[in-house]
Amino acid sequence: MAAEELSNKRVIFKDYVTGYPKEEDMILTSATVPSKVPQGSTAVLLKNLYLSCDPYMRGRMSKPINRSYTDAFTPGSVIIGYGVSKVVDSGHPDFSPGDLVWGMTGWEEYSLVTTPKGLTKIKYTDVPLSYYTGILGMPGLTAYVGFHEICSPKKGETVYVSAASGAVGQLVGQFAKLMGCYVVGSAGTKEKVDLLKSKFGFDDAFNYKEEEDLDAALKRCFPDGIDIYFENVGGKMLDAVLLNMRVHGRIAVCGLISQYNLTQREGIYNMTSIVTKRIKMQGFIEPDHKHLYPQFLEAVIQYIRDGKVVYVEDIAEGIEKAPSALIGLFTGRNVGKQVVLVARDR
Amino acid sequence: MAAEELSNKRVIFKDYVTGYPKEEDMILTSATVPSKVPQGSTAVLLKNLYLSCDPYMRGRMSKPINRSYTDAFTPGSVIIGYGVSKVVDSGHPDFSPGDLVWGMTGWEEYSLVTTPKGLTKIKYTDVPLSYYTGILGMPGLTAYVGFHEICSPKKGETVYVSAASGAVGQLVGQFAKLMGCYVVGSAGTKEKVDLLKSKFGFDDAFNYKEEEDLDAALKRCFPDGIDIYFENVGGKMLDAVLLNMRVHGRIAVCGLISQYNLTQREGIYNMTSIVTKRIKMQGFIEPDHKHLYPQFLEAVIQYIRDGKVVYVEDIAEGIEKAPSALIGLFTGRNVGKQVVLVARDR
Repeated sequence: MAAEELSNKRVIFKDYVTGYPKEEDMILTSATVPSKVPQGSTAVLLKNLYLSCDPYMRGRMSKPINRSYTDAFTPGSVIIGYGVSKVVDSGHPDFSPGDLVWGMTGWEEYSLVTTPKGLTKIKYTDVPLSYYTGILGMPGLTAYVGFHEICSPKKGETVYVSAASGAVGQLVGQFAKLMGCYVVGSAGTKEKVDLLKSKFGFDDAFNYKEEEDLDAALKRCFPDGIDIYFENVGGKMLDAVLLNMRVHGRIAVCGLISQYNLTQREGIYNMTSIVTKRIKMQGFIEPDHKHLYPQFLEAVIQYIRDGKVVYVEDIAEGIEKAPSALIGLFTGRNVGKQVVLVARDR
Repeated sequence: MAAEELSNKRVIFKDYVTGYPKEEDMILTSATVPSKVPQGSTAVLLKNLYLSCDPYMRGRMSKPINRSYTDAFTPGSVIIGYGVSKVVDSGHPDFSPGDLVWGMTGWEEYSLVTTPKGLTKIKYTDVPLSYYTGILGMPGLTAYVGFHEICSPKKGETVYVSAASGAVGQLVGQFAKLMGCYVVGSAGTKEKVDLLKSKFGFDDAFNYKEEEDLDAALKRCFPDGIDIYFENVGGKMLDAVLLNMRVHGRIAVCGLISQYNLTQREGIYNMTSIVTKRIKMQGFIEPDHKHLYPQFLEAVIQYIRDGKVVYVEDIAEGIEKAPSALIGLFTGRNVGKQVVLVARDR
C-alpha cells in the first residue's frame, strides 16, 4: 500500500543570528510528509505533541565559530529541539506505533527521525505529557544533577538561584528546600517573585530589575554569605555573587542567559574571590549525566505524586506560536517552563 | 640570670598600600630583643635565617575591606611571613634551642613567637635550608595539592602553567612531567623561558610579553586544547585560556598576580566556555591542605635526592634587601623562588 501524504507545518531556521533573535529569524512553512517510514529503514515517524523552548537553543542560532557542545542549526532547515511525540510508524525494533516518546525532534507537526537513539520511551503517563519537556525531561535532569552532583549540598546550607522561576530554577529551589537548605531566588517580575515564595516555597526572593545594587541585595538576603549558587544568568549577577560567596562555596554554571544575545559581553571582575574563598565553579550540561536519568525519574515522579514538588509551565498553543515563544525566553516573557502545544492527541 | 639584649633589625609595614607597593612602604629599623623568652611563658625565640617573599603578601598590604583568608598587616608593626629559623630559646615543650623550624615568623633578625603552633620542625637537613621557604614549604605544598588534588591529572593530558618559572610554577611543570603530561609554561623574560625548557623540562614555553595575541599563542602551543590550566596570573591570560580549554578541562586557581596591584581589574569575558566545555575552575590555598604535608614531604624529598625535581631560587642577601625583593615579585624581577638570606648560621 502506498503511503498517503500528511500535511506538515514546519518552522524553518532562516539564517544565523547576531544579537537578540527575532520572530522573523524563523519562517513558518507548509509541506507534506509520507505517512509511513521508507520500507526497510529503521526510521520512526513521529507526530509531535509538545515542543520545548530552551535557552541553549540560542547557541545553535549563531554562526558556528567556536566549537560548542551543540551544532549550529542549518539555515533553510527545520529547527531541532526537545519534544514529546507519538510514534505513528516505525521501522525500528524498539518503537511501535502508539508509543509515546520524548527527545530530539523537529519543529514541525510530523518528524521522520532516521536515527531514533535520541528518543526515550515515556514510562509514566499519569502526569501531563508536557512534563517530559520540563520537570521529567532535560531541564529536570539538569536541575537534579546540577544541584545534587555539582553542588554537593548539605542540610542547612544557603542556596541562591537566579532565573529562579524558569524551567530549571524552580526545580533547583524545590530540591534545595527538600534537602533542608535556606533558599533565595531572583527573577525579573513581581509575578515571578511572588510565585517563588508562594508556590515553590523559596525562603526569600527578589526582583533583580528593581535592585539598584545587586551586591547590596545579596548581602540583605544572605548576611552570612552564599554556600551554593546555581548560575543561570551570568554577567553582573555572577560578579555580585562572587563578592558574597562563603568559604568553600560552590557555583554550578548551568547557563548564562543574560549574555547570549550581547554582542559585547559583560566582564567578570571579582575573580580573586575564587582564591580567597576557595570557590569551586563548574560548568555542566545534562547529556554528560544521562546515565542518571532512571534514578532521577523514579525520585522525581514520586515527588510529583506526593505533591512535594510542583511545576509551572507556560504553554503556547499552536506551532504558529513557536517562534514567538522561543524569543520570549530571552526577554523573560515566559512564566515557568516555556512549552509549545502542537497537538493534543495522545 | 637576666637576659641580655640582642640587636634586632626589623622591617616595619608603614601603611596600607593601593596600586603597586614600593620599597618606601616598608621601613628598616633597629631595635633590641631579650635573648631569653619570658620566664614561665610557652613562647619561642627564633633567629631568622631565611625569609620568604610570596605574592599572597600583597593582599595583606591592602586596607582590610573584604574578608580574606589572611589578615591585613598592622601599620607600624613588623611584616609577617614564612621563614626558616633556628630556635634560640624556648619555653614550649615541643621546641628546644638549636631546633631548626619553618613557618610564620617576623621580618626581623630575631622573633619572639608567643604561639608556636604555626611552626614545623625541619626533618631533613641534607638539602638547602632555604628550600623550606619554597619547594619543601608553602609553595611546594601549594604546587603539589593544586596539581594532584585540584586538577586530577591523567597521563597524556595537556597542562599549561602561567608564571611558570616562579616558586610554584616551576614545580607544577615538573610534577606534570613526572605524571606523563605534555607541559607548556609562560613567563615574562627570555631568560625565564629558556629556564623552563632547559632546566625544568617543559615541552614548550613562551614569553607572554612578546605575544601580541595570547589566544593565538595558546592555539600554537596547544592545537588540540588544554586539559589542565594552573592559574597564577589571571586577567587577560585567563580570558585567553578559557577559549582554549578542552571539554572537561580543569583550572586550579592558585593566584592572580597580574591583578593584585591594579586599581581597576581586567574583566573576564569568556565565561560561556565554562558551560560549553564543562570546565571546573577551583580556587585553593595551601593551609586547607596542611594534613597532606607529611605525604608531600616524603615524596618530594625523594624527588630532590633522586634529581627528578630541581629548584631555582633567587636569593637576596641581607634583611636590608627584603623590601626590594618583595616588590620585585610584582614586576617579575625574580628568577625562581624569591628568598631573603638573613643569617647563614645553621
